[in-house]
Amino acid sequence: MEGGGAYNRSSRVQATGLLPAVAMLEAAARHAALEPSPRTIVIADYGASQGHNSLLPMSAAIAALRARVGVDRAILVVHTDQPDNDFGALFRTLSDDPDSYLRNDAAAFASAVGRSFYGQILPPDSVTLGWSSWSVQWLSRLPGPIPDQVQVAYSHDPAARAAYARQAAEDWHTFLTARSSELCPGGRLVVQTMALDDAGEFGYRPLLAAMYAELEKMVADRFLRPEELGRMAIPTVGRSRADLAAPFGPARRFGSLSLESLDIFGGEDQVWARFERTGDAVAFGREWAAFSRASVFPTLATALDGGREDPRHPAFPNRLEAGVAARLAADPCPMTIPLAKMMLVKDLAP
Amino acid sequence: MEGGGAYNRSSRVQATGLLPAVAMLEAAARHAALEPSPRTIVIADYGASQGHNSLLPMSAAIAALRARVGVDRAILVVHTDQPDNDFGALFRTLSDDPDSYLRNDAAAFASAVGRSFYGQILPPDSVTLGWSSWSVQWLSRLPGPIPDQVQVAYSHDPAARAAYARQAAEDWHTFLTARSSELCPGGRLVVQTMALDDAGEFGYRPLLAAMYAELEKMVADRFLRPEELGRMAIPTVGRSRADLAAPFGPARRFGSLSLESLDIFGGEDQVWARFERTGDAVAFGREWAAFSRASVFPTLATALDGGREDPRHPAFPNRLEAGVAARLAADPCPMTIPLAKMMLVKDLAP
Repeated sequence: MEGGGAYNRSSRVQATGLLPAVAMLEAAARHAALEPSPRTIVIADYGASQGHNSLLPMSAAIAALRARVGVDRAILVVHTDQPDNDFGALFRTLSDDPDSYLRNDAAAFASAVGRSFYGQILPPDSVTLGWSSWSVQWLSRLPGPIPDQVQVAYSHDPAARAAYARQAAEDWHTFLTARSSELCPGGRLVVQTMALDDAGEFGYRPLLAAMYAELEKMVADRFLRPEELGRMAIPTVGRSRADLAAPFGPARRFGSLSLESLDIFGGEDQVWARFERTGDAVAFGREWAAFSRASVFPTLATALDGGREDPRHPAFPNRLEAGVAARLAADPCPMTIPLAKMMLVKDLAP
Repeated sequence: MEGGGAYNRSSRVQATGLLPAVAMLEAAARHAALEPSPRTIVIADYGASQGHNSLLPMSAAIAALRARVGVDRAILVVHTDQPDNDFGALFRTLSDDPDSYLRNDAAAFASAVGRSFYGQILPPDSVTLGWSSWSVQWLSRLPGPIPDQVQVAYSHDPAARAAYARQAAEDWHTFLTARSSELCPGGRLVVQTMALDDAGEFGYRPLLAAMYAELEKMVADRFLRPEELGRMAIPTVGRSRADLAAPFGPARRFGSLSLESLDIFGGEDQVWARFERTGDAVAFGREWAAFSRASVFPTLATALDGGREDPRHPAFPNRLEAGVAARLAADPCPMTIPLAKMMLVKDLAP
């Protein structure tokens, strides 16, 4: 993710895509088993980034809990992300944003955990409600190079596709194992993530085509070396319904977790909707380019020969963003945004 | 505090000064009332900075608790600091430092809270053990200008001295009120802080003299404007034994908190001890200058006309550090380091 608050500013696609899962989170908050009062109710937000897109789901979850426990019960939200996340931006969002639960609920508290969620990072049996949005599509590591693309979904390289599929299966298993320990008995976890739709489509096709074409042009222009492009890869995957359900088996059970529901749905393409209203192709290109920049350009930039110290490091995202924006503006078309949402429930204590 | 891990690297004075309080924290861990198993035991580290100086006290506290509860009970350490703290450095320290409790204890967990501790920031009755080291000497805000110094302890301005004293009393009261809510019944809090010794001495006299002389030279050299120096002030105070005890009154009680012990002691001047061994005056100056830089130069730099964007912002700390180092190297002498440590206990539930 891009730091300095950039992800907060350029994540409207994500803000829209998570909405259908918020209703699921509210249902989870209505049905999760609660520890006896006055124990603090813990909500974990797995993959919080800079916090902006967490405010709405966290407020919704807190409101649903308040209807059950009243205004005085302490509710602690734990926002997790990787150690290099911009936690300063997260805490400023929580303290300053008028929509922050910290400003609107006197018995709500916040904390953060800067560790990868591909491991147990919270005490056992401590989380009443879990939420993870736009996060588990990120793999724990880069499984390897993608010779013909930056996104494995559009690669024709069998080795790359197999390596990513293996890592995706392993990471999902690891994620579920860790959460299954952390959830309280009767606790619930709602996960929203990028997915493959039931036709196997990853989506964002014109955007990824524009991005790869622009990167190839950078090579042709000798701004990038071919080896640098060869190293560039976005470690995200869209998982299919079958991929997501696999650890649960036919009984929909994984250890103490039950898969209560799993839906694949299409995210609303608001960028396209705005273009249809306004006819502003430049804005269309700009919005998708800003989305890509905030979410994946920092990852691509790590492949520059000099990494963060590379003299091209500042220019690279600007140039890529401008190129992607221009290519998309030249031929606006709707984007498929395949998403999954699911509700997991941990067994009540026997 | 200086970011980018600088505070971690240049805080040996603090690392030494907190040692006598660590023994007190171990005693607190042996005697604090514990919530019934399997509830997570929470240790709060109020004012953690980049975490380096928290590792030793947190490991000591965890070891003392482990002797009581065994290796499996979950212990969660919550590190708090202001929102602009370098939490990235904190989480990297926790994950990478060989002395980190996260590496050495499988049932230990970590989180962070980026909010001022001059307010309640954790749920009521949730903290078994509290620790605050080198932190409560920082006031919640700058009470006003100090016309003749950057440290109010050496100012002769009655208005400045009164404003700082008022703020110091108010902040200490606020700190205790918040902690008294957060502690579990029977929980314990150990506070180590800068103090006035029983002769009323704030200490660090040669260091502060060198710093102010160097700042005045920067004005004479027209590197700083006099108005900028006029705005420079370090919002730290040394509190006397009487100041620290005041909220508790003669019965040593403040709400549900008891002041079990309060000691004023002299921090060991290891920089001077090293100089006596080595005779290396340059190293003597360099160490104290690095200590000042990491702890207070960023605060002074905010008084530059352009703040962080001021073109002199990068040069200012370098120049001040070099000047302070040279002045101290020219005339090494021991430094008084007055400190306080105290143990507070919250009542068991009636």
